Amino acid sequence: MTIENLSANKSFAGWHKQYSHQSQALNCSMRFAIYLPPHISSGKKVPVLYWLSGLTCTDENFMQKSGVQRVAAELGIAIVAPDTSPRGEEVADDKHYDLGQGAGFYVNATQAPWNRHYQMYDYVVKELPKLIEETFPVSDKRAISGHSMGGHGALSIAMLNPTRYSSMSAFSPICNPISTPWGQKAFSAYLGKDKTTWQNHDASELMKQATHFVPAKVDQGGADDFLLEQLKPETLEAAAKMRDYTLELKIHEGYDHSYYFIASFIEEHLRFHASHLNR
Amino acid sequence: MTIENLSANKSFAGWHKQYSHQSQALNCSMRFAIYLPPHISSGKKVPVLYWLSGLTCTDENFMQKSGVQRVAAELGIAIVAPDTSPRGEEVADDKHYDLGQGAGFYVNATQAPWNRHYQMYDYVVKELPKLIEETFPVSDKRAISGHSMGGHGALSIAMLNPTRYSSMSAFSPICNPISTPWGQKAFSAYLGKDKTTWQNHDASELMKQATHFVPAKVDQGGADDFLLEQLKPETLEAAAKMRDYTLELKIHEGYDHSYYFIASFIEEHLRFHASHLNR
Repeated sequence: MTIENLSANKSFAGWHKQYSHQSQALNCSMRFAIYLPPHISSGKKVPVLYWLSGLTCTDENFMQKSGVQRVAAELGIAIVAPDTSPRGEEVADDKHYDLGQGAGFYVNATQAPWNRHYQMYDYVVKELPKLIEETFPVSDKRAISGHSMGGHGALSIAMLNPTRYSSMSAFSPICNPISTPWGQKAFSAYLGKDKTTWQNHDASELMKQATHFVPAKVDQGGADDFLLEQLKPETLEAAAKMRDYTLELKIHEGYDHSYYFIASFIEEHLRFHASHLNR
Repeated sequence: MTIENLSANKSFAGWHKQYSHQSQALNCSMRFAIYLPPHISSGKKVPVLYWLSGLTCTDENFMQKSGVQRVAAELGIAIVAPDTSPRGEEVADDKHYDLGQGAGFYVNATQAPWNRHYQMYDYVVKELPKLIEETFPVSDKRAISGHSMGGHGALSIAMLNPTRYSSMSAFSPICNPISTPWGQKAFSAYLGKDKTTWQNHDASELMKQATHFVPAKVDQGGADDFLLEQLKPETLEAAAKMRDYTLELKIHEGYDHSYYFIASFIEEHLRFHASHLNR
């Protein structure tokens, strides 16, 4: 497996780098970004936080706008940001922003034409961590976080793989995709009409059935335009109560769905993950 | 003078907002961004740091990528980011990125076709601060900073108006535009062939002749692709030595010309300005 370095920027005494590689899972060339904290120069292996972005994003949004590097540099955590879908002219797409390229929803598509490339679950859970752990000076300790569609991805992936991640968090996640428009549209297209397959990728449904608990933190803006129709944190909260699942869920008055919200609270998320990664 | 609010995002308990207004100086509609720290909710007037961006930027780059809000929220400083040139279909432009729209160079153009709109010096020094101080709960204490073309703007504007700014700083500034390609191209177009008019907008030349000193801080990346040909911090350093001008100039090994460099050191710049604004 060869990977190609596309860019490198020194950042808070560490390095932000972009790479491209040929993904087996996705059957196309993919780009990802990694932040390597200064700790690696002493030969120390650092844990990794995987960040899953929201609709329309690439590997760049989080790295450019969240300010995560400052805290990652202090705490000694590598950050990996994959793209949000397979990419390329030969990859199926849709004219709307919430399906197709930029909108992979972190599932393995079973339906044509999506199933040829849209295997984002396998990419994020298996192929990319294997590549990262073989290529960079990182340990096998992992945490996962994300925003909106990526918040859905982070929570559902961690609950489906509770021993692979020491902690999970999300900003403004789609908490109950099976009952909200973005999720219903994407799951119909990628997973088909049988809604029993949808439940396996719904954070609220997964939390209701959880047996192995992953420490969880969710932050949501109270002035988020998507809150009522698309995100439904109350569904996740109810599932956590039903199951006695430890979930730190906060609604922050006045904050919206943007990276200005994420930047305001990313430090709290990093410290939360560090407290579990370093155990 | 009416201004229109275009967007508002809560950020670190304060607010990032964008506005448009009809500029008299520039003879067109202009957009700017302001960050208002949480301190204003208690009725306190806060000082203002003006940030001048580099080539191709708008009001958005610094606000989205620098992470400045975290420190501004702590220190109680408002941040104002103007656009980098007049804008619009009727505004003269050039097909290259380093002249015309996105490349105003913070001077008052005297040459056609530029002189009709390109009066960025008057806009940044006079019109915009007047509007800001009449509209928002800010004091008349001002500092100025910027990046690359905006670093040239910040240093030259502060030295031309040493009593208006309590401090000046720059990341990767064009320190000697009269002797480097970006500056020569822009000054030829905007100011004409008489090079004596250029010297009045050259940070190194202004520093050589300074009589009233503005506290100054400059940071430069050692791996910046533009360092040797375009930026020439050694010229500014020589001028400071000649004049005994207090200049904190540091070269940071490995850092490039990007916002990853700015984000890494913006906290130091804010604390530097705060130490002078709060005197």
